Amino acid sequence: MMTQLLTSYKEDFSGWYKDIIKMADLADYSPVRGCMVIKPYGYEIWEAIKHGLDMRFKETGHVNAYFPLLIPKSFIEKESEHIEGFSPLLAIVTIGGGKVLEEPLVIRPTSETIIGHMYAQWIKSYRDLPILINQWANVVRWELRTKLFLRTMEFLWQEGHTAHATYDEAQEETLRMLDVYRDFAINDAAIPVFHGLKPKSETFAGALESYSIEAMMGDKKALQAGTSHNLGQNFAKSFDIKYTDKNNKIHYCWTTSWGLSTRMVGAIIMVHGDSKGLRLPPIVAPIQVVLIPIYSRESDRSQVLRLTNEIYNELKIAGIRIHLDDRREVSPGFKFNDWEMRGIPLRLEIGLRELESNQLSFSRRDLSIEEGRGMIPRSGVSEQIKDLLSEIQQSLLFQAEEFRNANVHETTSFDNFKKIVKTGWAFAWWCGDEECEGEIKYESKSLPRCIPREDGWEKERTISCCVRCGKQALEKVYYARSY
Amino acid sequence: MMTQLLTSYKEDFSGWYKDIIKMADLADYSPVRGCMVIKPYGYEIWEAIKHGLDMRFKETGHVNAYFPLLIPKSFIEKESEHIEGFSPLLAIVTIGGGKVLEEPLVIRPTSETIIGHMYAQWIKSYRDLPILINQWANVVRWELRTKLFLRTMEFLWQEGHTAHATYDEAQEETLRMLDVYRDFAINDAAIPVFHGLKPKSETFAGALESYSIEAMMGDKKALQAGTSHNLGQNFAKSFDIKYTDKNNKIHYCWTTSWGLSTRMVGAIIMVHGDSKGLRLPPIVAPIQVVLIPIYSRESDRSQVLRLTNEIYNELKIAGIRIHLDDRREVSPGFKFNDWEMRGIPLRLEIGLRELESNQLSFSRRDLSIEEGRGMIPRSGVSEQIKDLLSEIQQSLLFQAEEFRNANVHETTSFDNFKKIVKTGWAFAWWCGDEECEGEIKYESKSLPRCIPREDGWEKERTISCCVRCGKQALEKVYYARSY
Repeated sequence: MMTQLLTSYKEDFSGWYKDIIKMADLADYSPVRGCMVIKPYGYEIWEAIKHGLDMRFKETGHVNAYFPLLIPKSFIEKESEHIEGFSPLLAIVTIGGGKVLEEPLVIRPTSETIIGHMYAQWIKSYRDLPILINQWANVVRWELRTKLFLRTMEFLWQEGHTAHATYDEAQEETLRMLDVYRDFAINDAAIPVFHGLKPKSETFAGALESYSIEAMMGDKKALQAGTSHNLGQNFAKSFDIKYTDKNNKIHYCWTTSWGLSTRMVGAIIMVHGDSKGLRLPPIVAPIQVVLIPIYSRESDRSQVLRLTNEIYNELKIAGIRIHLDDRREVSPGFKFNDWEMRGIPLRLEIGLRELESNQLSFSRRDLSIEEGRGMIPRSGVSEQIKDLLSEIQQSLLFQAEEFRNANVHETTSFDNFKKIVKTGWAFAWWCGDEECEGEIKYESKSLPRCIPREDGWEKERTISCCVRCGKQALEKVYYARSY
Repeated sequence: MMTQLLTSYKEDFSGWYKDIIKMADLADYSPVRGCMVIKPYGYEIWEAIKHGLDMRFKETGHVNAYFPLLIPKSFIEKESEHIEGFSPLLAIVTIGGGKVLEEPLVIRPTSETIIGHMYAQWIKSYRDLPILINQWANVVRWELRTKLFLRTMEFLWQEGHTAHATYDEAQEETLRMLDVYRDFAINDAAIPVFHGLKPKSETFAGALESYSIEAMMGDKKALQAGTSHNLGQNFAKSFDIKYTDKNNKIHYCWTTSWGLSTRMVGAIIMVHGDSKGLRLPPIVAPIQVVLIPIYSRESDRSQVLRLTNEIYNELKIAGIRIHLDDRREVSPGFKFNDWEMRGIPLRLEIGLRELESNQLSFSRRDLSIEEGRGMIPRSGVSEQIKDLLSEIQQSLLFQAEEFRNANVHETTSFDNFKKIVKTGWAFAWWCGDEECEGEIKYESKSLPRCIPREDGWEKERTISCCVRCGKQALEKVYYARSY
């Protein structure tokens, strides 16, 4: 029974987020500090995310494989930037089978090193290229300040690792996968994202260039929701990944890696949720439609349930993910709140009125109570429900877009910039100097998120100046406080 | 290019197994001794296994969730038999984030302890029961004598963990999941299995009773391919998993666990493989049909490819997993061998003869070259291919059954018993005495696999004697050398 009150979305977003995760039964804390337990309802959202991504990976020619959890510590140390970035985050196995290990093993924080080692053995000739492999796995990065789904010591993700003959092919792959993430975020998760290059200071440890998709959460903070890295020849050189070309010449390969994690569940919560709880886009919702029979007299129960069961079977056969809530120990009102909290996109109510009128009452989770209510004719119900679900999917994306667009502001004045990033995102030119970047961070408490290189960008920069120092502009950057 | 010769199946089964894994590109050794890399083709077989099981789990009311990889060492020590069984197998993290940990963490060898800890918090009332959760995960058990898929330090598996109000419900669940495994093995993997109780000596560390499915490999050794445990109240007592009944009385729960791992890939290889390589049952085959265009004159190429592409599209749309091998740099003969090695159930050849006759030539991987060849009419090809695939699925099961039945022998004489287990399985009565069991193991080099309690078993035992000591029989047991 739900008796707890949801913390106010407006007044305490962080408290609201914690409450939602608990009240909608998404995840729990583990006895090991920093780790999380993903409960069935939260895991089903992750399964929907996996499904949407895996399909896209396969359509773009990738295959899945599995590489070991444990990596020799010396591997991590082979790429100098990589070790610098990851060494403070490692969980290290020193004892195995009752004995102290000669060489400690590291639990993978990411798998460039072990996969690079294998690729060096698998790739001989240009004929073996490209290699396009993805892995669904858990990784561990030491982290004790847990925020469920967003920051945990262990998380689930996919990591793609590819090897190519040329820089151009690797760069094309890097951008292709960034686009796959963008397409997934927008069309499945209904999350509008900016995509672009990460500034050097935020580049993945060991990469030439990193790209990301960046989403605005309900509290207007930014969340990096997926990253794609062009690793250049850095890992190829550290791990000796080489191929022989048609003329028998030997070259180092060009590699990429790209990943998206259970953070995406957190993003979905924080982009769509509202004061009544979760709101799930139909494509990633474990339950798309909840059916609630309504009757006050016990004698009406059987005929109401008869229609309810009919509708249930019809929608089920049509492939709609549907749940029938025929609990007798709780009232319809309780059920309404309960399913609203869990973010079910569409509720159908079936009672005497519906029986008599041959219509069904629905209530959309994406709109207010007044706007979201309506009736649909009984006949052809499954097609109409599909249309409604597709409208809800679009509407959630539209709302998120409206919200984001209202809170991103372009500016050329640093005073203005500092005001903007207190309550939203700034979009501004930067001189490219890292010291200047540091000052921006320090003075505004915001971070550069990504650098979208849209058409006309190169021309525009010739007539633009850095928002802070006024020197010649190099890049136009999104800035925001961030998770 | 495949130049290596496959080791003889008859003369060196173990060498044959290693060769197949390498030549069919299923898996590789990792730089960490004991770990394996599952290559894309091997991983696709595992994905098919996951799909078949996950569907069955959901049909029987289970949901997926995810619990942490890292478990406090003290948890493992709470259940006395559990620690005894697992402590020699543990990988232990002693350093995290650059610091020595106050309490070392164990990488899960199995998750009864951490899941038990969470269930204790989640379960309050009889209304919370049953809990029916499954997890797809990796586990680590220290093991250096690697045999890919069969014995590795890290492996992938699913582990179901359920909690119930009564012993009867837990026992019913234990047997239900054993039956799910049996159904999967027979109908998807085409592997006939015996199912039954494990003798006490082979029971899971901490369980009341363990059950397993046991399969006969091509070398007549036994492989335990899935296990289901009734844990009684052992873990409930160690982790304080309690519920309040309708009358407000507090009881310990009854729990179960059940698991099936990447071992199943090894079983599929060793049950169906032959002297030419792998043979995959269509339901778990990543590629069900391979299409090979045949032409000797370059001028015939385009019309042959036209028909080939037509067939390809038709089968693809029909949902058949198909691959078109239009490589020009290798001969049809090379392709035949290559795909035979990889175990593709059905090969279609399309050349001028097929164009002219309006028929397609096929070759079934489950039968000899002579018996497996045939022609099917061009029209309605996808239905015919589906029928053929279903025949192949049945035929592989039938062959495995024939082979197993020919190599399991019932006996009442211990001299005979010792001969039987040298080249097959024995089925014999046992007095139930563990000392006698030890003697059987020692003298025959075979292990008790499982105790099937078929109808009439209790009556039969009253007139039967132990195969070794001649005392009153208690159980009838399958014995075999085993993996």
